[in-house]
Amino acid sequence: MIRIGICGYGNLGKGVESAIKQNDDLELVAVFTRRNPADLKILTPNVKVYNISEIESFKDKIDVMILCGGSATDLPKQTPELAKWFNVIDSFDTHANIYNHYLNVDKASKANDKTAIISVGWDPGMFSLNRLYASSVLVDGKDYTFWGKGVSQGHSDAIRRIEGVLDAKQYTIPVEEALIGARSGNNPDLTTRQKHTRECFVVLKDESYAEKVEKKIKEMPNYFADYDTTVHFISLEELKKNHSGIPHGGFVIRSGRTGWNLENKHVIEYSLKLDSNPEFTGSVLVAYARACYKMNKEGIRGCNTVMDVAPKYLSNLSTEEILKHLV
Amino acid sequence: MIRIGICGYGNLGKGVESAIKQNDDLELVAVFTRRNPADLKILTPNVKVYNISEIESFKDKIDVMILCGGSATDLPKQTPELAKWFNVIDSFDTHANIYNHYLNVDKASKANDKTAIISVGWDPGMFSLNRLYASSVLVDGKDYTFWGKGVSQGHSDAIRRIEGVLDAKQYTIPVEEALIGARSGNNPDLTTRQKHTRECFVVLKDESYAEKVEKKIKEMPNYFADYDTTVHFISLEELKKNHSGIPHGGFVIRSGRTGWNLENKHVIEYSLKLDSNPEFTGSVLVAYARACYKMNKEGIRGCNTVMDVAPKYLSNLSTEEILKHLV
Repeated sequence: MIRIGICGYGNLGKGVESAIKQNDDLELVAVFTRRNPADLKILTPNVKVYNISEIESFKDKIDVMILCGGSATDLPKQTPELAKWFNVIDSFDTHANIYNHYLNVDKASKANDKTAIISVGWDPGMFSLNRLYASSVLVDGKDYTFWGKGVSQGHSDAIRRIEGVLDAKQYTIPVEEALIGARSGNNPDLTTRQKHTRECFVVLKDESYAEKVEKKIKEMPNYFADYDTTVHFISLEELKKNHSGIPHGGFVIRSGRTGWNLENKHVIEYSLKLDSNPEFTGSVLVAYARACYKMNKEGIRGCNTVMDVAPKYLSNLSTEEILKHLV
Repeated sequence: MIRIGICGYGNLGKGVESAIKQNDDLELVAVFTRRNPADLKILTPNVKVYNISEIESFKDKIDVMILCGGSATDLPKQTPELAKWFNVIDSFDTHANIYNHYLNVDKASKANDKTAIISVGWDPGMFSLNRLYASSVLVDGKDYTFWGKGVSQGHSDAIRRIEGVLDAKQYTIPVEEALIGARSGNNPDLTTRQKHTRECFVVLKDESYAEKVEKKIKEMPNYFADYDTTVHFISLEELKKNHSGIPHGGFVIRSGRTGWNLENKHVIEYSLKLDSNPEFTGSVLVAYARACYKMNKEGIRGCNTVMDVAPKYLSNLSTEEILKHLV
């Protein structure tokens, strides 16, 4: 049994917990939190919750620690820190800072003979893999990544911070014509606005805020200004009834040309349709936790991303089973 | 520059040759054939064709040999033989015999300090990878592989061997309703007949054969008897005009459930739409030739499949570039 720890118990931590239950070779040993452990109810029977201050004492009791904190402030600090004592996995997803994070975690894990895998999930993660495989095979081509339809947590939060807003949910939606263009093999140039629209469901504290809130959303730089954005004002009841899920998904499409005179077109497409973003991400993390354990056993040290992990490590099947049933 | 040899110059060998041209870090050194080299015209200027009997003399001049023979009789013999002198890549695609082939090639390559990657292409190959990634992430789920729409060489050949047939092309076509079922997340059981239909375009030597040929095709065990098969008789002119391409493609779909009570559904889909099956397969082979070279440099020995190859090895980008642009 591979002994797993979960550090951080929000939506993602819960997703990881459920995924561990689905894998016979994995065992949840403990959950760590910054909150008061007594206040936290977890789902797995007979597993205890500890304050994060006690985590070092588990260094010989846990094979892989899965970090479920946020990318803004938690993981840049926690992953290198915990890599001193544990093999670690995280889902660090600030694309622009992945290389720096990699260097920090690599240093800490190598110095302590540990194995780390960062930026695991679906983007970064499964989508990254598909960008690499597709671009390595179709050298003369073009990549398209589309997100959605799904809930963007960051954009929903940004709306909630506007004065007069009680609650909000934001959906990112790929534009159908842009998808068709990407699949055509004609390699169209597509702007941000052409690829996605944004749809917002907003509960106001008071109806009088409506005009101001709509304007603030639509003009918000980075978040909404570059997109065609629709704002719907709804009741709290309706928000809870129809928008409480956390679905997501998306598409990675590469079209390219081959042949002596580049006369033939090809399209590679990978897509995800997810009812629960955190549960799917948790499932990816758990598969890579298995890989992390096996790689550490084989003497591989330091920081890795999904690009460094041979696919076989994700499976609990033997080489013979993989060759007979999956290849 | 990575020095590449091509062994076998049919459609696949030509596809590999074109793919090498698209990659700046790869160089075609020589083509080997069982035919009389003087009879073979290749596309790359200043590269010579040799009889396969001379291949051993190139053992220090070629970094990776790409074997482009057939899986029925060529590769089971050639790959282990050539693994004595070269790092080798093949596209061995008889799924039932991959494990045996692996053992044979592993023995030969390990004994001679070489690196081999077998069963590279799209199925086996890219489709295998997607079956493994998806089933490792969505543990509680179901896989569906669909092929087509595309030309099946084996089925076309089988029709050509029937008495009275001058030429033929066979298309494998996924059934739209079956695809919808696989994507629904409801994990339907689908029989062979429900997943694909087969469409045959046949040129007869003489119209009088029509009835017999159609019956022979539709009742042919393994090839057609288990499918809904349509037979069209056309002229040689029409066959050449409308059916001379070698398109193919397909879908790997996995649907699965997550959550403490398996309450959420997810669908992962990978698809290919290829104008030229041999050129795409050739492009995959060439990317794995790069991987083979790098893995050999890093001291990895013996036989591998796509499952053993960390994705980074396929790319000619540095770790820093991969982390900054693809992850």
